[in-house]
Amino acid sequence: MNERKLDFLFKPRSIAVVGASDVPGKLSTIIMDSLVDSGFKGSIYPVNPKHQTVRSLKCYPSIEEIEDGVDLAVFAVPAPLTPGLLKRANGKLKGAIIVSGGFGEMDEAGRGLEGELKEIVKNGGPRIIGPNCMGIYDSISKVDTFFLSRERIKRPKRGSISILTQSGSFASTAMDELAAEGIGVARLISYGNRVDVNESDCLDFLAGDRATKAVLLYIEAIDEGRRFIESASRCAAKKTVMAVKVGRHAEGALAAMSHTGAISGRYEIYKAAFKKAGVIELEGYEEFIDGCRAFTMQEMAKGPRVLIITDGGGIGVAIADACMDSDLCVESLTEEKKQALKAIFPPYYTIGNPMDLTGSVNDELFAEALEKSMEGSEFDMAIVAALWGPPNLTDRLPGLLAEKAERIGKPVLICTPGGKYTRRKKKLFEKRKLPVFSSPESAARAASVLAGKKGVKR
Amino acid sequence: MNERKLDFLFKPRSIAVVGASDVPGKLSTIIMDSLVDSGFKGSIYPVNPKHQTVRSLKCYPSIEEIEDGVDLAVFAVPAPLTPGLLKRANGKLKGAIIVSGGFGEMDEAGRGLEGELKEIVKNGGPRIIGPNCMGIYDSISKVDTFFLSRERIKRPKRGSISILTQSGSFASTAMDELAAEGIGVARLISYGNRVDVNESDCLDFLAGDRATKAVLLYIEAIDEGRRFIESASRCAAKKTVMAVKVGRHAEGALAAMSHTGAISGRYEIYKAAFKKAGVIELEGYEEFIDGCRAFTMQEMAKGPRVLIITDGGGIGVAIADACMDSDLCVESLTEEKKQALKAIFPPYYTIGNPMDLTGSVNDELFAEALEKSMEGSEFDMAIVAALWGPPNLTDRLPGLLAEKAERIGKPVLICTPGGKYTRRKKKLFEKRKLPVFSSPESAARAASVLAGKKGVKR
Repeated sequence: MNERKLDFLFKPRSIAVVGASDVPGKLSTIIMDSLVDSGFKGSIYPVNPKHQTVRSLKCYPSIEEIEDGVDLAVFAVPAPLTPGLLKRANGKLKGAIIVSGGFGEMDEAGRGLEGELKEIVKNGGPRIIGPNCMGIYDSISKVDTFFLSRERIKRPKRGSISILTQSGSFASTAMDELAAEGIGVARLISYGNRVDVNESDCLDFLAGDRATKAVLLYIEAIDEGRRFIESASRCAAKKTVMAVKVGRHAEGALAAMSHTGAISGRYEIYKAAFKKAGVIELEGYEEFIDGCRAFTMQEMAKGPRVLIITDGGGIGVAIADACMDSDLCVESLTEEKKQALKAIFPPYYTIGNPMDLTGSVNDELFAEALEKSMEGSEFDMAIVAALWGPPNLTDRLPGLLAEKAERIGKPVLICTPGGKYTRRKKKLFEKRKLPVFSSPESAARAASVLAGKKGVKR
Repeated sequence: MNERKLDFLFKPRSIAVVGASDVPGKLSTIIMDSLVDSGFKGSIYPVNPKHQTVRSLKCYPSIEEIEDGVDLAVFAVPAPLTPGLLKRANGKLKGAIIVSGGFGEMDEAGRGLEGELKEIVKNGGPRIIGPNCMGIYDSISKVDTFFLSRERIKRPKRGSISILTQSGSFASTAMDELAAEGIGVARLISYGNRVDVNESDCLDFLAGDRATKAVLLYIEAIDEGRRFIESASRCAAKKTVMAVKVGRHAEGALAAMSHTGAISGRYEIYKAAFKKAGVIELEGYEEFIDGCRAFTMQEMAKGPRVLIITDGGGIGVAIADACMDSDLCVESLTEEKKQALKAIFPPYYTIGNPMDLTGSVNDELFAEALEKSMEGSEFDMAIVAALWGPPNLTDRLPGLLAEKAERIGKPVLICTPGGKYTRRKKKLFEKRKLPVFSSPESAARAASVLAGKKGVKR
């Protein structure tokens, strides 16, 4: 087991960009832009024998020529050149991120190059992330090696979730979507073919990272199963750890193999490993995003018992169905509580689970119904379907619900499917830390994630 | 079986609004606004003994005072007044939509009122939609009895899908979402407690309706099972018929009952009825919306065999997983086709299923890969995951893909998860009739709907 700390990767004092350029469209140009524009505070050293300066910074012919030591070098040069350059830089360098493709994922020659990289690490060379990866986006240290223009792929704000992924496209897509949705991340690591640093190394680092409250993994395959279980268990003892395993079906496994050259193994083995390590398994991209949204604004729930409150009966029933499909409990209120609520609210409210307040509801009654029905210990969380059609609901509703949610002390999720007017109101809820889901199913997925996916199997 | 035609409900020459008003916020005011502002071409008769005019139209004290006959009257008066008013109008009226609540869904007295309404129909009175419903939104005749302001709930443009639903909140939410997504509908009927007109009557009407190409039902419960199977079968012989059954689980069934007062029955019975009638069963709200989107822009597929093409490997694998979760087939290319494609495309493309064109792809190669890999009869449809991160993709891509899709003659779905830049590009695809899905799972749901949900059970 490799116990060396990875601080120099996430909090480097200096970064060299090997193959640096300012020719528009080149990978290394985008990386230079990202580092300079994102506000990275350490030293940036462009390295390229063809240039004197890059983006007004002195450009070095090689890493060896840089006077000071370098914490991290990003290699954006053709695959065949990489091992040689890395060897020559040995001693100067603590860590390397190799973003280039053309390695093990492509052909026999590429697998040979990966062998050379592994040798370098084994002989005391720098730790390596990649090759065939996006590297690191760190919202705290501002390290950003994602070679995707910020016009096309936005970076999320600072948050408490860290994401580990083998796939660069998954990483960048999720990053862009989270940014658009206003969901923050702490650190995002795309490690690609992982000749060295893998999910377990990152889990070890994140277990001790104060900026990270939850870790989400996108896994195609794991090399060292035992070590993963150890690292994941240690991390899960301190933080919430969730994972999506792709290539679950035989055909998907084949595709995952050709993609990063790793063998995915049988899905059942992963399932067992997640369970053993206390990792919450997410079922795909949607659950990944829904989970991030829920987790960013709410705490984990104590159990799977959901109360549904709605101003539209049909949507309430659809949420109940979706919750039960996700193995959550949607049980009725106690007879005692029913009677108590019937005494307070109008006779045409349906007092049950779902609670249907009908289209005549107003802001105050909605908030009061939430508080009163969540009193006691019957339910672990609430899904509030506040459809905006009913004419008496105003912009005061989100604030009133948020006050009650705070008093209740249990997760409250908002489910508001609909069109333009409804979508505009989303921000009012999210400002008050109430996460908004735009379909019955996505609210149920989020609730199920907050319950640790520990529902009742039907 | 009731063979009387329902044309007067969907294409009325005249509409009376009973309880008409122009006091802001009242249901009947919103209905008057909708009818006047939506461009309904027939006569509109406000009816209310308290007013002389409503929205500058002559207001009648009662339906009986209207000189001409009335095709359709909308009743927006308190439940207890409704049967009496309806009885008095008998002979003057072909159809009635009762939007008011306070009937069978509330209490014993309400059930009594419903009995009176049934008597009126039985004795040759007008056909009734409702009570406790939204009524009709018809994009062709411009009948719109949905008492929800157009500011909050937008109406969809004209399209070829008709929607039948027991739940008003489901109807209005879906309507608003479809409008925001630019998906059109033909006719939308919310029939609520259905003392008379039910899903089978509507299916009979829609079977012969030239404006309707597909029918989607949202079902809480069905009263007359045998008749439903007959009507649905007849309709499904001519058009695509799809249905969501909610209240599938025991608890959800209870909620559905209290909502419209109907008994939902056992889910397995519905499943068998759908199968017998040739109705495609949808699994919830998301599949309902995804199905509408896919069906509006593409034809049904001949089978469940999907080819996935992507410029990001990880998202490709996630789509493959989602497809297989939805029982679709994701099988590899024949060895022969693989060799042929390998000869054309760069060596770092993964030729398989998914096809991974990597981040270096450009517009032309993307389109060519779609065409070449869909040649022959191996696949029934394609999912194209065009992630916008790769720098060489331009706004020309959607047009090029659309041209190839037309030549291929099989459904092509676009899957582009992501943030702002990606979401802006959605319109470029949809202008060219390529439906866009924003997650691997939603693309898979849509593909599964286009395959008639006839996948391979795993």
